[in-house]
Amino acid sequence: MQTCIQLASKGKGFVSPNPLVGSVIVRDDKIIGKGYHKNFGKAHAEVNAILDAKKNGHNVEGAVLYVNLEPCSHLGKTGSCAELLITEKIKKVVIGMKDPYEKVNGKGMKKLRDAGIEVVVGVLEDECKELNKFFIRFVTKKLPYVSLKIAQSIDGKIALNNFKSQWITGEASRKFVHQLRSEYDVVLIGKNTAKYDNPSLTVRDVRGRTPYRIVIDNNSSLPENLKLFTDEDKERTYVVTGISKKSVTKIYNYNMIRVREKDQKLILKDILKKLYSMDISSVLVEGGANLYSQFAKSDLYDDIYLFIAPKIVGRGISSFSDFEVTKLSQAKNLEFVYTKKFDRDILIYSKKCSQA
Amino acid sequence: MQTCIQLASKGKGFVSPNPLVGSVIVRDDKIIGKGYHKNFGKAHAEVNAILDAKKNGHNVEGAVLYVNLEPCSHLGKTGSCAELLITEKIKKVVIGMKDPYEKVNGKGMKKLRDAGIEVVVGVLEDECKELNKFFIRFVTKKLPYVSLKIAQSIDGKIALNNFKSQWITGEASRKFVHQLRSEYDVVLIGKNTAKYDNPSLTVRDVRGRTPYRIVIDNNSSLPENLKLFTDEDKERTYVVTGISKKSVTKIYNYNMIRVREKDQKLILKDILKKLYSMDISSVLVEGGANLYSQFAKSDLYDDIYLFIAPKIVGRGISSFSDFEVTKLSQAKNLEFVYTKKFDRDILIYSKKCSQA
Repeated sequence: MQTCIQLASKGKGFVSPNPLVGSVIVRDDKIIGKGYHKNFGKAHAEVNAILDAKKNGHNVEGAVLYVNLEPCSHLGKTGSCAELLITEKIKKVVIGMKDPYEKVNGKGMKKLRDAGIEVVVGVLEDECKELNKFFIRFVTKKLPYVSLKIAQSIDGKIALNNFKSQWITGEASRKFVHQLRSEYDVVLIGKNTAKYDNPSLTVRDVRGRTPYRIVIDNNSSLPENLKLFTDEDKERTYVVTGISKKSVTKIYNYNMIRVREKDQKLILKDILKKLYSMDISSVLVEGGANLYSQFAKSDLYDDIYLFIAPKIVGRGISSFSDFEVTKLSQAKNLEFVYTKKFDRDILIYSKKCSQA
Repeated sequence: MQTCIQLASKGKGFVSPNPLVGSVIVRDDKIIGKGYHKNFGKAHAEVNAILDAKKNGHNVEGAVLYVNLEPCSHLGKTGSCAELLITEKIKKVVIGMKDPYEKVNGKGMKKLRDAGIEVVVGVLEDECKELNKFFIRFVTKKLPYVSLKIAQSIDGKIALNNFKSQWITGEASRKFVHQLRSEYDVVLIGKNTAKYDNPSLTVRDVRGRTPYRIVIDNNSSLPENLKLFTDEDKERTYVVTGISKKSVTKIYNYNMIRVREKDQKLILKDILKKLYSMDISSVLVEGGANLYSQFAKSDLYDDIYLFIAPKIVGRGISSFSDFEVTKLSQAKNLEFVYTKKFDRDILIYSKKCSQA
């Protein structure tokens, strides 16, 4: 199953909003075929594993197939995997987790069992769920998975009061952020971050594709010479605007996503719903304080990558400066999952916690 | 040497401003005697180790003695240890680190070598230096060692704007803080912390003695019914005041430490010098933001115990809210040494870093 997860991970950044799936076929304790879901709409992992086994001259009849997600039962862009495994006379199927997608959700396993195939489910289930957290959120809540990425000093400052902030953390941290970007569908930032930092938000220090770069700018007032609007990836930049099509008075040099304003504001949940409707299953929020605060207020984030630089900054812009509670019991609760050193910085990875 | 360090650690909280010293005597690869420096002014570790060996019927002549700090050469409150080792005909002395105290500083080793004893120095030297960081600071800089202990949310807030803050971190973190208190000579706080938190600053959840509790209150205006001034340890509470003896107009129910004001302010360095003159070698600063900021400005701290609670607080009091820089390059640099989980909280321990 560990091998399935590793194989599945190779699809990161390319299969969304489909799940990451890896599969291996085993006979006599030896792996005779491996496969993974490589690209959205392309062959599923099980198909690739069977093709791989056959290509290497193996017969898959009577073999055991391992896969991190329940084989599909429906006919989507590709054939039903459950049917294929029955046709190929696989003897036993070991599954990491049930597919929560409503069109599958146990139907794949039922089909296999009805055909007399032995089915085991729940192997390394937690790891399999972590692997497909974007997909699970997407199909169960009909919203994208949201991670906040924050880089701050030990005293919680993401910038000085004059908005000076770039490179508060070191190179190793930034490289990891590039890795993250390559795995998310979208990097989302607020207007001030776009204006003051003028970031590229591209994937530079690691291999991988640049995500969609989306800026929230309700009145489309950002200068059009920003890197996001002019660099070689500019086709992948979108501005979320509240301006309706008919009230547009000029031509913009960037793609727009229209969300209706309420009280002259864009509501975060409306933006996320819109992104969901665009088949976006994961969003990495890279600032600034106003946007982080909106996510905290609305409870619409799932986890936080908090990079802490070994610095005391003092007065400046706090990471959640626009969020306010009157009692400590109203503070948002998290659960620390792990810490990791990146050269001189520390990353604290935490998940939202619904209980106090 | 590891055993010496463990033995020495038993003296934590009781030997200041003397060093923590542990010693073992070995013959034929077996430990025949152990000792440590138990209380300020009492027998040194080497003496206790020799007495221990003799008590158990061992002859120490020709044995090897291990000790984490160079044996003393001068006659202080006790006899010179170097002389004793010569008299007792110890064959070889293995030393963790040279004693930086000006009255020793190599003279102990010289005495031993002149008497024909083999001397090895620098064994586990870093660990030995860490063990005696208070003592080293005290004798080399003539100032106490200063640690900042900060408990904050992930966004760097130590309290809400209404000063509500108590128990931002959990029980396990607080227990560790009690352990720290038992090892420092002094716990130091500012006036606002005394007033709004009304803390006890005692050692409750672990065994150990309560340190001196010192509050900075330049005009002695704190209410006299605070816990610090009324509880059973009130004799161990001191107020640093700028009021001179002759301008006192009332009788206070607490001990005072007088430091001369400059421009109606108390200068941190003057306070620390005063504490040094009182034989205080270690200070644990427990808040609040104003005091932390003064330490940051003046570079008079040595390390930071930063406890982070898994909470987003938003608007509130930042840990270093009275410190300000105009460029990021002026931020104070630290070096992260380790992180440790305390139940739901994380401790990040860092040291001051002189280089960027």
